[in-house]
Amino acid sequence: MKQQQLLLRERPNGLPDENTFEFAETDQGSPEKGEVLLKTLYVSVDPYMRGRMSDAPSYVAPFELGEPLTGGVVAQVIESNSDDLKKGDIVRGNLPFQEYHVQKPSHVSKVQTNGLDPSAALSVLGMPGLTAYFGMMHIGKPKEGETVVVSGAAGAVGQVAGQLAKQAGAHVIGIVGSEEKASYIKEKLGYDEAVEYKKDNFEEQLKNACPNGIDVYYENVGGEISDHIWPLLNTFARVPVCGAIASYNLEEGEKDIGLRVQQFVVKARVLMQGFIVGDFSDHYAEAYQELAKAVEKGKLHFEETIYEGFEKIPEAFLGLFSGANIGKQLVKVAEKE
Amino acid sequence: MKQQQLLLRERPNGLPDENTFEFAETDQGSPEKGEVLLKTLYVSVDPYMRGRMSDAPSYVAPFELGEPLTGGVVAQVIESNSDDLKKGDIVRGNLPFQEYHVQKPSHVSKVQTNGLDPSAALSVLGMPGLTAYFGMMHIGKPKEGETVVVSGAAGAVGQVAGQLAKQAGAHVIGIVGSEEKASYIKEKLGYDEAVEYKKDNFEEQLKNACPNGIDVYYENVGGEISDHIWPLLNTFARVPVCGAIASYNLEEGEKDIGLRVQQFVVKARVLMQGFIVGDFSDHYAEAYQELAKAVEKGKLHFEETIYEGFEKIPEAFLGLFSGANIGKQLVKVAEKE
Repeated sequence: MKQQQLLLRERPNGLPDENTFEFAETDQGSPEKGEVLLKTLYVSVDPYMRGRMSDAPSYVAPFELGEPLTGGVVAQVIESNSDDLKKGDIVRGNLPFQEYHVQKPSHVSKVQTNGLDPSAALSVLGMPGLTAYFGMMHIGKPKEGETVVVSGAAGAVGQVAGQLAKQAGAHVIGIVGSEEKASYIKEKLGYDEAVEYKKDNFEEQLKNACPNGIDVYYENVGGEISDHIWPLLNTFARVPVCGAIASYNLEEGEKDIGLRVQQFVVKARVLMQGFIVGDFSDHYAEAYQELAKAVEKGKLHFEETIYEGFEKIPEAFLGLFSGANIGKQLVKVAEKE
Repeated sequence: MKQQQLLLRERPNGLPDENTFEFAETDQGSPEKGEVLLKTLYVSVDPYMRGRMSDAPSYVAPFELGEPLTGGVVAQVIESNSDDLKKGDIVRGNLPFQEYHVQKPSHVSKVQTNGLDPSAALSVLGMPGLTAYFGMMHIGKPKEGETVVVSGAAGAVGQVAGQLAKQAGAHVIGIVGSEEKASYIKEKLGYDEAVEYKKDNFEEQLKNACPNGIDVYYENVGGEISDHIWPLLNTFARVPVCGAIASYNLEEGEKDIGLRVQQFVVKARVLMQGFIVGDFSDHYAEAYQELAKAVEKGKLHFEETIYEGFEKIPEAFLGLFSGANIGKQLVKVAEKE
């Protein structure tokens, strides 16, 4: 049996395009003793994958040319030769982007969906949810009455981060790229205010939304947006930095030039900390439990933008950089059986 | 009896100049019951004072126009109407820049000079020494074998910071502005290497000096120098930020533009933290003890650049911005009696 794979064809210089990707056919394979055959249900496309398309050193190894991209995948066991997983089980793993997988059970984790669609294991109960949780609760630590600003507020991470800050009693402002997203974060997520960065009066909007300055800036995007944040930071402000998507598609030799941050960091004694979820692996259980409980109680709303079909992965990935998605961007590859 | 004072005449726009300052005469005053009369021995000029010359909000209130500048002063009790201090005692305080002071003893601290000149209370055993200690030991936390880079390495703070990192077993590189300072930090302070930022090949020198990347960057200066640091930061690098002198003399409306830091902060999961000594006031005793012990054992070398005469304060202050000083810049106003 043949299946589709998505390979890295060319390392992009600047924004990835159709030459970056290549579809290929390969054998589906069959599980030996102790292995299972998985069918991909959902594939996660995430901004950090752009970094892996380059061969510069980073916190994850680069993708290999001519090899499948890998990333967050939710899959279902359709054949099992292992006692550890049975047919029908739903698992999550960091897996190659292909329709089927022959894997050892130890390479994936069984997912409890708690009545949610298994896609949640890649969004609110997966890496983006945990990223929001650790950045906001372990670094940002918003207190009652403080002002919290979240960039990329309608995205996979931002939608969770803002709600966590609201639950902590903060006044929460989201930065978004469209009116639709502004409505989404205010009406569905409970943000106090939305500020649209594509509008000419962005700086004025932001200042008006933060009359008491900013105590926590959840940094999701980088670039010019953040230049307007630094002068508003209050004493002992915290800045968790989980992404800088604005700089991911710089061309070779191009630099991300803007306001240097040091004068503001020293003046306001700011704590700025970059992190990835893996840095908090000791706290996975706590984070998962808090997020799952909040979802169950209806206190944590989340949305997903789902493209259908394996062939839509490149389009879904590229959409991340034009801000096409509300909530988590996913690709649905197959129905659960 | 009359005495000299140094007043803020005009708020500078950009680099301060002769119009910034004004000397004035005022009465020396005489101590009432419970007060002492102090004679200024040394005045400390420090880069952070530039911030107080502007009326922008910061961690210390702005100086008032037409009022004396204030800052670190070491003085001697020449007349005492208090049981708490006796004639001859040496004290340190945040005092107006004038030759004499009528003060309550509670407004100053008695200084133990441990056989050192009392100027040490404004340098290695004062604010600069404590700044170096807290930034390096409480934020930077260098480990054996790590690479530590200190900017402003030959200055009041840098000279102490680098030696503390050496004592922790790190490989220590200093960034300096002249050959003389390069020799100073290597020969007198024990830095492993010196890199001169005014040379054309600064970036190359820096890379060569840090073949294993940078684990701690003690940020003392900001500006273009630091732009070359960010790409070299290792995973979990720490960046204590105690100053950004490069940005202190920006003109109104001028911005400090350079490399944005976020992509490096997230890629290497950097911890960057701005601080002032007061943030660590719970640890003053520890810091003072460690520094005094190291000085006493001959393990902590320090130098001071001392201008003589009250009228030299403006010149000494301005020299900070052209990098005139090696070690702590002080002005000696009078001899100890």
